[in-house]
Amino acid sequence: MKVTDTPRRLVAEALGTGILVCTVVGSGIMAETLTPDVAVALLGNTIPTGAILFVLITILGPLSGAHFNPAVSLGFAVRGDLAWRDLGAYVGAQIAGGILGTLAAHLMFELPVGQVSTHVRTGGAQWFSEWVATFGLMTVILGGLARAPQAIPALVGLYITAAYWFTASTSFANPAVAIARSLTDTFSGIRPVDLAGFIPAQLVGAVAAVWLARWLFQPQK
Amino acid sequence: MKVTDTPRRLVAEALGTGILVCTVVGSGIMAETLTPDVAVALLGNTIPTGAILFVLITILGPLSGAHFNPAVSLGFAVRGDLAWRDLGAYVGAQIAGGILGTLAAHLMFELPVGQVSTHVRTGGAQWFSEWVATFGLMTVILGGLARAPQAIPALVGLYITAAYWFTASTSFANPAVAIARSLTDTFSGIRPVDLAGFIPAQLVGAVAAVWLARWLFQPQK
Amino acid sequence: MKVTDTPRRLVAEALGTGILVCTVVGSGIMAETLTPDVAVALLGNTIPTGAILFVLITILGPLSGAHFNPAVSLGFAVRGDLAWRDLGAYVGAQIAGGILGTLAAHLMFELPVGQVSTHVRTGGAQWFSEWVATFGLMTVILGGLARAPQAIPALVGLYITAAYWFTASTSFANPAVAIARSLTDTFSGIRPVDLAGFIPAQLVGAVAAVWLARWLFQPQK
Amino acid sequence: MKVTDTPRRLVAEALGTGILVCTVVGSGIMAETLTPDVAVALLGNTIPTGAILFVLITILGPLSGAHFNPAVSLGFAVRGDLAWRDLGAYVGAQIAGGILGTLAAHLMFELPVGQVSTHVRTGGAQWFSEWVATFGLMTVILGGLARAPQAIPALVGLYITAAYWFTASTSFANPAVAIARSLTDTFSGIRPVDLAGFIPAQLVGAVAAVWLARWLFQPQK
Repeated sequence: MKVTDTPRRLVAEALGTGILVCTVVGSGIMAETLTPDVAVALLGNTIPTGAILFVLITILGPLSGAHFNPAVSLGFAVRGDLAWRDLGAYVGAQIAGGILGTLAAHLMFELPVGQVSTHVRTGGAQWFSEWVATFGLMTVILGGLARAPQAIPALVGLYITAAYWFTASTSFANPAVAIARSLTDTFSGIRPVDLAGFIPAQLVGAVAAVWLARWLFQPQK
Repeated sequence: MKVTDTPRRLVAEALGTGILVCTVVGSGIMAETLTPDVAVALLGNTIPTGAILFVLITILGPLSGAHFNPAVSLGFAVRGDLAWRDLGAYVGAQIAGGILGTLAAHLMFELPVGQVSTHVRTGGAQWFSEWVATFGLMTVILGGLARAPQAIPALVGLYITAAYWFTASTSFANPAVAIARSLTDTFSGIRPVDLAGFIPAQLVGAVAAVWLARWLFQPQK
Repeated sequence: MKVTDTPRRLVAEALGTGILVCTVVGSGIMAETLTPDVAVALLGNTIPTGAILFVLITILGPLSGAHFNPAVSLGFAVRGDLAWRDLGAYVGAQIAGGILGTLAAHLMFELPVGQVSTHVRTGGAQWFSEWVATFGLMTVILGGLARAPQAIPALVGLYITAAYWFTASTSFANPAVAIARSLTDTFSGIRPVDLAGFIPAQLVGAVAAVWLARWLFQPQK
Repeated sequence: MKVTDTPRRLVAEALGTGILVCTVVGSGIMAETLTPDVAVALLGNTIPTGAILFVLITILGPLSGAHFNPAVSLGFAVRGDLAWRDLGAYVGAQIAGGILGTLAAHLMFELPVGQVSTHVRTGGAQWFSEWVATFGLMTVILGGLARAPQAIPALVGLYITAAYWFTASTSFANPAVAIARSLTDTFSGIRPVDLAGFIPAQLVGAVAAVWLARWLFQPQK
């Protein structure tokens, strides 16, 4: 990376995380407003999220890698694919962008801009869900990089589509998104205090996947 | 563009916009007829719209660029990709095609052909939604052109799939489609008077995206 | 085509049409059994149909062209892409395969194998819907052939996904499928007498699309 | 295959089957918890399953072939594509991985880890459904291998998406998945005793498809 490209990379990370969070939060608000059936609402939350991930990774991946996710950036730092000195800036851009995404969703839906979630998401089963969700996400990204790099936008979009439903936590799998979602008291929210369980589970899951992938996806001899 | 190709380009823009509007309006009528659950109806409106966008852009893109959208055509004129002298004809073809699409949907569903919508869509939050929706759409198109031109049909189809749900306005993001939708008093309609807020927001959003993309997606040095 | 390949081509047309019909009829039975919400049922009918079209056209297209549809075969004969002397065999294989598809669906769902539909689908609006649906289908196929042949499986699957919802008839767009669907008195059925309106509308739509496409998708000079 | 790669291949089969089962069982639990509408629940079960199949086959296919399915492995052994001496290890890895997938889903949703299903799925129509489902699956895989190998992840994901709805059994089509699903008393379960009908139907279906495909997809002369 040339130094002159750094601002664009950070804008890409912030913009991508912002649009991702805006989609998760906004579609959650739209869905819970329109239906009493929670599974229908979750479909209305899942399909847009999977779709926008494909879009954002395709157009921003060549710029910044399209992490949009501190756990993924940490995983790449552990592998040596992201310079450790860039990690802080990446994470900062992701968190800032994510928070702006929540605010934009509130503005569009005429809700109070500043909110704090009261949605309880805690306990061992939720933390195990987040570990599984992030372990799976990082495995999918690293498997894609090793075997089918051009398919990564589809792989991530479809993995998250599935993980919304097969984990008990609806698969946050992303500390920046989790922080941003703690600032909305709507369908997709999470109590700020519950971040203390979610974020460590996500970080450990991502790093565990790096360890598995080093063996599983090593170049075939 | 050779002069002799102009009629085909304009027919492509009119046909594409017409089928797009026919899909939006027709699927809205079908959906609201079949279910009392508005989120299910919106799924029945979203999935066909995303699907037909992929189809129309794939087959008509090589002919006319497959804008189907005056805001997008304006954005391309600002960039110098569409001759200013062609802009008027493009916009005229898009608006005419869109209106015919609404009429065709009414004919298929045995509704009065000539209608005027009474669906109120106004206020700052709606206008901000339309600004976001069109800014995002143009950013996605220009990012796709710069990084993955072959993926543009999927990018636009999936972006609109998401934007239906993450914006409070269900993401019209298109002045020609908005005009055509003012002529149906069904699920997808909009009062003609409310166009005065939607269309400027859309045009400003598209031009703002041109400005961002010039910096963000410039060729890497 | 070499003469020795004819049996495989006809088996491909029969097998493909059979699996297509089995999907349309079977998913209709499954859906109407599971939900009182007709829009949810239509989603449960639409998504499998679009999915199986992608699959069948991908694997059988290289063998027979994967028409699975007498209106499409007629269109290709008019264009000179299918020998007129092969048209009868193609249509026969499609109709026979389609009927077997209905019977297989009835067997799987433990319904009486021989049925006659009582579902009324008639009148000018329905016929216009079928004209539009088949005109659009043939235009999409020919546009795909001219501009993006490798995308045809996705184009057809997504076009039908949309057309289920934007036409008032749910887009049969296929005489062989319509005949097969007249033999099931379930969600997707059609009264045999109503075929007299549907089939001519479909055939005229397909041929009209050939005429449009000859001009619209001619090679660019 | 080099001997040294065997552990990675078996881990790939176990991991893939485990994530597949975890998705089927977990999304079923999520769906039935959230909605009283069984068709909505089936959509919430279908979409994640199709999505994860695309993901798993893309990243693990280059390692092990991504069978995740004893019926498919048997089919490949009959064709000579999998050494008979490897078949037992493949099937063992698939069954072990599948069972772990069920356990993981139970842990995430805070359910008793050890369960036995009471969901009755038996009778000739169900067995015929499983024969059709597995015959179709193997035909699609072999057609894909012959005509469009790069499309196999999409082909399998979309085929199963359709087959969930067009078969009366919701298309298990996989002995290892069926065994794993006998160990959950939730939406996607099956009584252990009913495996005695499902598994033979699946194995016969897969082998029948090998026989058809040998003729239908032979290289064109």
